[in-house]
Amino acid sequence: MKIQLAQQNYHIGNFERNTEKIIDAIGSARQAGADLVVFSELSVCGYPPRDFLEFGDFIDRCRSTIDRICQETMDIGVIIGAPVRNTRPEGKDLFNAAWLLHEGEVKAVVHKTLLPTYDVFDEYRYFEPAFEWKVVSFKGKKIALTICEDIWNLGDNPLYRICPMDLLMQQHPDLMINISASPFDYDHDEDRKDIVRRNVLKYGLPMIYCNAVGSQTEIVFDGGSLVYNDRGDLVRELKYFEEDRYLADTEHLYVGDDTVSTDDIMKSQGKVRVSSVVDPDKVIPYLTAEHHISQIHQALIVGIRDYFGKMGFTKAILGSSGGIDSAVALTLACEALGAENVRAILMPSPYSSTHSVTDAEQLSRNLGNPFDLIPIKDIYESFLTALQPIYKGLPFSLAEENLQSRTRGNLLMAIANKFGYILLNTSNKSELATGYGTLYGDMAGGLSVLGDVYKMQVFALARHLNRNGEVIPENIIIKPPSAELRPGQKDSDSLPEYDLLDKVLYQYIEKRKGPREIIDMGVDEALVARVLKLVNLNEYKRNQFCPIIRVSSKAFGVGRRVPIVGKYLS
Amino acid sequence: MKIQLAQQNYHIGNFERNTEKIIDAIGSARQAGADLVVFSELSVCGYPPRDFLEFGDFIDRCRSTIDRICQETMDIGVIIGAPVRNTRPEGKDLFNAAWLLHEGEVKAVVHKTLLPTYDVFDEYRYFEPAFEWKVVSFKGKKIALTICEDIWNLGDNPLYRICPMDLLMQQHPDLMINISASPFDYDHDEDRKDIVRRNVLKYGLPMIYCNAVGSQTEIVFDGGSLVYNDRGDLVRELKYFEEDRYLADTEHLYVGDDTVSTDDIMKSQGKVRVSSVVDPDKVIPYLTAEHHISQIHQALIVGIRDYFGKMGFTKAILGSSGGIDSAVALTLACEALGAENVRAILMPSPYSSTHSVTDAEQLSRNLGNPFDLIPIKDIYESFLTALQPIYKGLPFSLAEENLQSRTRGNLLMAIANKFGYILLNTSNKSELATGYGTLYGDMAGGLSVLGDVYKMQVFALARHLNRNGEVIPENIIIKPPSAELRPGQKDSDSLPEYDLLDKVLYQYIEKRKGPREIIDMGVDEALVARVLKLVNLNEYKRNQFCPIIRVSSKAFGVGRRVPIVGKYLS
Repeated sequence: MKIQLAQQNYHIGNFERNTEKIIDAIGSARQAGADLVVFSELSVCGYPPRDFLEFGDFIDRCRSTIDRICQETMDIGVIIGAPVRNTRPEGKDLFNAAWLLHEGEVKAVVHKTLLPTYDVFDEYRYFEPAFEWKVVSFKGKKIALTICEDIWNLGDNPLYRICPMDLLMQQHPDLMINISASPFDYDHDEDRKDIVRRNVLKYGLPMIYCNAVGSQTEIVFDGGSLVYNDRGDLVRELKYFEEDRYLADTEHLYVGDDTVSTDDIMKSQGKVRVSSVVDPDKVIPYLTAEHHISQIHQALIVGIRDYFGKMGFTKAILGSSGGIDSAVALTLACEALGAENVRAILMPSPYSSTHSVTDAEQLSRNLGNPFDLIPIKDIYESFLTALQPIYKGLPFSLAEENLQSRTRGNLLMAIANKFGYILLNTSNKSELATGYGTLYGDMAGGLSVLGDVYKMQVFALARHLNRNGEVIPENIIIKPPSAELRPGQKDSDSLPEYDLLDKVLYQYIEKRKGPREIIDMGVDEALVARVLKLVNLNEYKRNQFCPIIRVSSKAFGVGRRVPIVGKYLS
Repeated sequence: MKIQLAQQNYHIGNFERNTEKIIDAIGSARQAGADLVVFSELSVCGYPPRDFLEFGDFIDRCRSTIDRICQETMDIGVIIGAPVRNTRPEGKDLFNAAWLLHEGEVKAVVHKTLLPTYDVFDEYRYFEPAFEWKVVSFKGKKIALTICEDIWNLGDNPLYRICPMDLLMQQHPDLMINISASPFDYDHDEDRKDIVRRNVLKYGLPMIYCNAVGSQTEIVFDGGSLVYNDRGDLVRELKYFEEDRYLADTEHLYVGDDTVSTDDIMKSQGKVRVSSVVDPDKVIPYLTAEHHISQIHQALIVGIRDYFGKMGFTKAILGSSGGIDSAVALTLACEALGAENVRAILMPSPYSSTHSVTDAEQLSRNLGNPFDLIPIKDIYESFLTALQPIYKGLPFSLAEENLQSRTRGNLLMAIANKFGYILLNTSNKSELATGYGTLYGDMAGGLSVLGDVYKMQVFALARHLNRNGEVIPENIIIKPPSAELRPGQKDSDSLPEYDLLDKVLYQYIEKRKGPREIIDMGVDEALVARVLKLVNLNEYKRNQFCPIIRVSSKAFGVGRRVPIVGKYLS
């Protein structure tokens, strides 16, 4: 049997566009001689549809799209993802389902059993787990059809009580097919191949694994769909970060050699799906490793491009300060959207150094993107004049620093609103973690490019972007980070040095280590207390922040939900 | 047996303060002669602790708090809520548990079975459902001990597959005790009593029901703990919106008369926990009914007061425009925090009417709160001057309107930052729904007072606040709503009339009705399409909005999760 994997980029709720893409892929699969074409999880409506699933109208549209696609299946099978109503009285109203369509009909509907409800996932919010497990038959083959998380419950500390593949094996399937929407993170790159291979080795069956690709607001799906033969050999790995198709011939997937040792297949996979880097001395080399930085680079490009494309925008604006964060964000935006579509605004304040302007100008000349200079002094002073009756000569404080930052935010939004740009935010993860930023000022924007990239990774990303020649001027990379909001200010006046800060943040945010554990790694006790307190105190700021392109196993935003009025470590 | 209900207001993660409160209540229960004192769900750490539960350190602190409380239980029993680790290999790492403490020991730990994972709830994100069901024994009584949602699964369309009380009944308990953290909404006021009574009638046992009280960021817990005798009579309803205690004597809870008809006990309770108002002609009277408005009033006071108290702030600032939203928000803030702690800033623009200032001044004189006047003309013009090389004489547009609004936001934040105020946001739910507001301008603020209150409800709330005499000047209530950002502007230039708009919004947001269903209620098709499109297009704005005090069954914010890049009805 010939099976076409269709790894595609969908748009949530855009049924018309998704249907067009799906039908197009069916046509191309037919031409290629496929018997069956496989799409990713919830491809009909896009993943994650979130609370749209609570609308009966939305579910009806999913169903009518299935009916439309059915018409294309007279001579070819289709496995596709869409929600389906739960017709039993008990349980939630929906299942997350894989549909087998053929001969113009719905031949089978398989329900997802394991519903991820952690990090960015909310599936148990909407879906009831499967009540029953049946293989589906197609052209004489019995297929064990599962959905994403269904195959992840291996090991001796499983997250769920049931292992759906164990149940399906009782019906002696010939082949495993899994349809997924499995997001990217740089900590996760080998896990997916590993889990697919473990299933293959455990059950002795080939696996066709079809993932989604493309970004949905903050979540980047990286593709990399997989075909494994029954011996656990990787037959094909589809492209990462772009659409791809592949025609697998199942005849070549049965090698039947059972000599592979399976001794270690079932060793603990654990519940915590994050890598085991906890040694503080290895954190920074790990975070800044070239293969991580290179993946982050690709993910951010997809994240920017899809956000604009799916929001219906083509042009970006950002504040270019001459600092490394805005330089890296600008460089990425120019790559994602085309330099001509990215407008940089240079807004020196009375406390800006001269190099902040000259470096930013040089950067834009290197990139070839349009830029403008708007000094903020006069506006800033008009604010101070208006505030004088209230401020009454009180000394310069954080309020005046924030005022400069918000004046810039206001100017950027004024230009964005006038001409139809999206403002790109340039804050990094270390700043966001510690609240070292101004709400409505440098925290303004429609999309955060670097909000899941620690400062030390921003440096590494800058080097990476210069790998084929200097784009980001060297001076931007080497100068000490500064917000330049008061005379002689340096980030290190307010924050620990970034290599130390990022180590602590990584242990706390990604690894959920408590203060005692981090201190026991050899970090100074007062520093740990100070950093953790900053993180927790500033939840209120991050709560108002824009979506952050997610590249790590624990990004701020939808996948990290912390009480604002909480009083823990703060 | 004498059982003390301790309905208290906890602070998430503030173990020290919570422990103090709990020990204090144990002491007072002992003095009152109680055998047992009952606290609400997760009272040790506060509800909802959200992702703090992912920190081993946080769980350890919960456990050491339990050990501390144990020391107070030599001569009195305590039932209290705290998470506990799942020691089985399979399933999530934690249970949501009710602990029975007595004689200085943990006597029993009961696990929650039904884990709400809808609207504001995320319990399956953290907790594994119970594996087993056992009554707990205390002083010769067998207690069926359950946690919140565990008793809600009645009716012929249950949300869950299991009904824990059915299983506990096999062990012939004498009494039901339920510990809850059940939030307020004005749609929900009788549901809780109804569900407790249904349980009583179904199982023929008395019920002691202890709820939390107080606000946690956006979620308001309204208390109203309950004691029912075994015949379904309400013996005691504790206070709403404040702490309260009550000593129940179980001897008086056995009436034993079984003559009550139980015919209708099991009729459908349904999964959708919202009232059945769908007739468009009845929506506005329903939304603005005096008993709803009065409850909303109380909830907003608690919401403001607890947000400030738990964040460690005492003083608020807000922009007072002379419009009804800011007038109502200011009046509520003065009641919650004391008029002397609320500073109103009047910031007329070149397009403001004279009454906008005089009305706002009159309001503050009525309330007795401090206010200042800062005209924004000069700042606004300094922005326009700076932007002139870029705007190049393009006609006045939304960008200039937003600029005025953001100038105000910037001024308010500048004063807030200088003096340590929290900026209260005054946007209403109708505006937020349709995106009729400016990010970082009138959408700025640390807490939204009216973001879950439709405009028609704001009018009703204004009348309610004036019920004992005019506080909000009549002119503020009767003048046509306007943003006053260009000459002669009225809200009705951009939006449908509010009575019509709010009807449509309620059907779409609270009731999750689709366009066809709303049109079939007799609303114009083009209007429905326009309103739903506005709602969905503006998700990106609401995503950056501050926490909204939740008073309805579906507030924007944490309980409504909609894709930003979605293309559904938009």
